[in-house]
Amino acid sequence: MASFLSIMTLTNLLVISLALNLSLVLRIYVNTENQEQMSPSVISNDEDPAPQRTLLSVSSSSGEDDIDRVINLNQGDPTMYEKYWMMMGKRTTVVIPGWQSMSYFSDVKNLCWFLEPELAKQVIRLHKAVGNAVTEGRHIVVGTGSSQLIMAALFALSPKDGSEPMSVVSTAPYYSSYPAMSSYLKSGLYKWAGDAKSLNKEGPYIELITSPNNPDGFIRSSTVNRTGGMLVHDLAYYWPQYTPITSPVDHDMSLFTVTKATGHAGTRVGWALVKDEEVAKKMVNFIELNTIGVSRDSQLRAAKILEVITSTTEKVGSSDSGASFFEVSYHLLAERWRQLRAAVSNDSMFSLPEFAPGYCNSLQQETQPQPAFAWLKCEDDAVEDCESFFRGHNVLTRGGSKFGFSPKYVRVSMVERDINFRLFLKRLSEIQS
Amino acid sequence: MASFLSIMTLTNLLVISLALNLSLVLRIYVNTENQEQMSPSVISNDEDPAPQRTLLSVSSSSGEDDIDRVINLNQGDPTMYEKYWMMMGKRTTVVIPGWQSMSYFSDVKNLCWFLEPELAKQVIRLHKAVGNAVTEGRHIVVGTGSSQLIMAALFALSPKDGSEPMSVVSTAPYYSSYPAMSSYLKSGLYKWAGDAKSLNKEGPYIELITSPNNPDGFIRSSTVNRTGGMLVHDLAYYWPQYTPITSPVDHDMSLFTVTKATGHAGTRVGWALVKDEEVAKKMVNFIELNTIGVSRDSQLRAAKILEVITSTTEKVGSSDSGASFFEVSYHLLAERWRQLRAAVSNDSMFSLPEFAPGYCNSLQQETQPQPAFAWLKCEDDAVEDCESFFRGHNVLTRGGSKFGFSPKYVRVSMVERDINFRLFLKRLSEIQS
Repeated sequence: MASFLSIMTLTNLLVISLALNLSLVLRIYVNTENQEQMSPSVISNDEDPAPQRTLLSVSSSSGEDDIDRVINLNQGDPTMYEKYWMMMGKRTTVVIPGWQSMSYFSDVKNLCWFLEPELAKQVIRLHKAVGNAVTEGRHIVVGTGSSQLIMAALFALSPKDGSEPMSVVSTAPYYSSYPAMSSYLKSGLYKWAGDAKSLNKEGPYIELITSPNNPDGFIRSSTVNRTGGMLVHDLAYYWPQYTPITSPVDHDMSLFTVTKATGHAGTRVGWALVKDEEVAKKMVNFIELNTIGVSRDSQLRAAKILEVITSTTEKVGSSDSGASFFEVSYHLLAERWRQLRAAVSNDSMFSLPEFAPGYCNSLQQETQPQPAFAWLKCEDDAVEDCESFFRGHNVLTRGGSKFGFSPKYVRVSMVERDINFRLFLKRLSEIQS
Repeated sequence: MASFLSIMTLTNLLVISLALNLSLVLRIYVNTENQEQMSPSVISNDEDPAPQRTLLSVSSSSGEDDIDRVINLNQGDPTMYEKYWMMMGKRTTVVIPGWQSMSYFSDVKNLCWFLEPELAKQVIRLHKAVGNAVTEGRHIVVGTGSSQLIMAALFALSPKDGSEPMSVVSTAPYYSSYPAMSSYLKSGLYKWAGDAKSLNKEGPYIELITSPNNPDGFIRSSTVNRTGGMLVHDLAYYWPQYTPITSPVDHDMSLFTVTKATGHAGTRVGWALVKDEEVAKKMVNFIELNTIGVSRDSQLRAAKILEVITSTTEKVGSSDSGASFFEVSYHLLAERWRQLRAAVSNDSMFSLPEFAPGYCNSLQQETQPQPAFAWLKCEDDAVEDCESFFRGHNVLTRGGSKFGFSPKYVRVSMVERDINFRLFLKRLSEIQS
């Protein structure tokens, strides 16, 4: 009887346990299904099968090239980073319920009322972890990418009642969009005045300083150095994968963007660190009139991405929090630059800039500058226009004249998907053989 | 022995089953935790506890008022709609994995290369279901809210080499941001020229036509009607909850935005339906230079929201797809307008516009115009400045002079959260008693 009871009890327990199993299995199944139902537009997103394609294509090494296939390395579309983010899986997924973030306002108490507090928090945390910028005593102004922030800065730094437009300059080769951005609206407040080296007008001016520079990758400081100069530092590329982080920048106005930091170009989120409160207020005013703030959805997504990056950065060397974004990206770019230099060193047709290494406080080692763009020169005397030369080989690049420089140069994206970079190397070697 | 074996087997099975339970429980726990971790900024969003507050506050009817409490009805923040979207639950949740939508490009083959195909599809579907706009033969240009599209339109419609800036006009009372939006950059391309009724300069001009109008809610057409006029139709409020949808608009340029259509102001997504390809191209060019496209995350969210709205619209009358967004919103606004009219009809201190009803093809019934703003007039001779008068009673409104009109008027948001609207009614009755 005791044995029977004992068996019965065990049998009962087993039945209960199996029932529990079933309910738990069902629960997991229903959860999974709900997650899939939640985002049909996202999961079954036919127009964006790119990451899958990339992953598949990495292992294929033949039959992918076709001499007629056009390789577009004109834009700096940072799709190279997709692989890292796929590897990170669900950690970086954002879930936004339909009723969330409906109001215009993110934080009515903040000078920048459309800045999501969570993004502000993650921006500060990231700069601290990387050590690339001082955030103390700064106002954070969020923008729809750093393009909007550049224009907000021009608006904020130009007097409203000036007798003539403020001159806007940058040292050539300068970012190819600066001339159009500062002149397309024919503003009476500011006006593109070309290469900073040739600024010959007296009086106040705004100097745009990109460091590391787009297109050539060199670290820059002010060129003009005259009274009345206002400096806007575009630091889109001051991250450990591109250049040694030697010290935190401490400027009046520094601009950053997730586009180049993490690769999330489509999210359109950048931020400015602004010392002067009045300047920050005017930038906020510009963004109010321009777009009534910045998408809260994209800010929440950017915050999530920055949070993950920071966690992997803070734990560099340990395996607790996943592979460090900056370490992985540094090694990817290092390999690409090694391959590119090898591809052009066989011949005297092309040349690349040479950089001095430096100690990177973030990666805690000596690192090489390895810009997001290769500033390639066609050394052949017969080639006057390097962009046309490459177009003739079905490679789209951006010619030097668009950067206020010699057409003997082209800017080539180094952050495109693997397949495009590999095909570019192949074309380079075909051109030289 | 058999019994021992049987007990052993049962015991073993139980252990295995319990272990399985444990692993399943752990899996659910980890899943749940992951989901929470996935969106800490989303789930534990301290700065935005609004929807919860709203739901709780609806049933409370006493003790919420405090005469010192400032009620802000100055902006048209469409938080009234939060309740509907909470009711719809997970159907409108978007899930965006970390590797998705990283590229700048949404659709390289489209004239508007930064337009998400899914959003384009849902925009067309929605206009067809509601019957408020012809989409055939139109280019869709997406913008960071309709503000950006208004400026893109000004840029696209102004000649680049004009001898003087193009005049921009709108009939007073006009949207209060038009003057600043068309003059803050002191553009040489276009210039604010005030009330359309007083345009006395010959030559080309741009007329901004808001219909139904912000602030007064009336249906509008062009005022100037002169050769060389280019019309921009701002149709932010041409949706069934605000006005009878009598026919689909068929203009050269029509602007819409999710902000007023669905209440998702924080998402910053609007769209233009543009007939002329060259104009559409110039608008795209403006947005390229201004913000290099529009956040893909917010477009995916907007697409999801529009998809749900359309599904509930197509099935009006049936219960298959949830309550119709436009029916629910129409009834909410109808109730608010009934309460507001009752509150001001007791006295001759205030007056409201009177509207003629019309047959709404979308809701398939005769409906009343019930704008997103009340254009309230202080009838009391002693009150010169209606905005100041209300401010004295701790109610923030927007005064008539900001709309190029008499300061005897104020614009009052009708789409704020319940609690603010209820308090406003209470203040109104206190003022009149």
